[in-house]
Amino acid sequence: MFYDFPQDFKAFEPVPGFLVRVVSGERLMLSHVTLAPHSETPLHRHSEEQMGIMLDGEFEMTIGDETRFLKKGDMYLVPANTMHGGITHNEHALILDAFSPPRETYR
Amino acid sequence: MFYDFPQDFKAFEPVPGFLVRVVSGERLMLSHVTLAPHSETPLHRHSEEQMGIMLDGEFEMTIGDETRFLKKGDMYLVPANTMHGGITHNEHALILDAFSPPRETYR
Repeated sequence: MFYDFPQDFKAFEPVPGFLVRVVSGERLMLSHVTLAPHSETPLHRHSEEQMGIMLDGEFEMTIGDETRFLKKGDMYLVPANTMHGGITHNEHALILDAFSPPRETYR
Repeated sequence: MFYDFPQDFKAFEPVPGFLVRVVSGERLMLSHVTLAPHSETPLHRHSEEQMGIMLDGEFEMTIGDETRFLKKGDMYLVPANTMHGGITHNEHALILDAFSPPRETYR
């Protein structure tokens, strides 16, 4: 199926400046994330595996004990139960994450 | 972990003009696809579920009995064992696909 954005997506704003829009299949969830400048996804972990790509902007991301400054096209893997999070500085960030299984707290 | 592109990716060219670069976790695989203008991903199906996003360019994609002309930011779901494929016209296409489980034939 093809999705119409954003109307087919379920939207959340877990913290101000951090907007998440998700769609799910049986095994996969896509999460379209918009982060305003000077906002944060606090360090957290979950049992679902996560892989993602920077669609636009800039994001200083930490996975486990490694931190990198990400730009458009950069990709990463967050293994299950691994601490991760990040912050934006003067730029916004647009990120696409895939989760498997679909993230329970977002369904 | 953070990936360096393209050196951390396993590359394939299933048909000329159709370049695939993949990385995998335990449950997820990301597939970074570059299609030259006037090229094709022939209709096919597989047991892995697939979700994707258009990163750039244009792609005329068929999933089951539905065909759409996709542009940057468009997203879709290919349920397990569903026929799908597509073509480019005058533009190239850059696509990011997620598979779960990781696609056996790409590992």
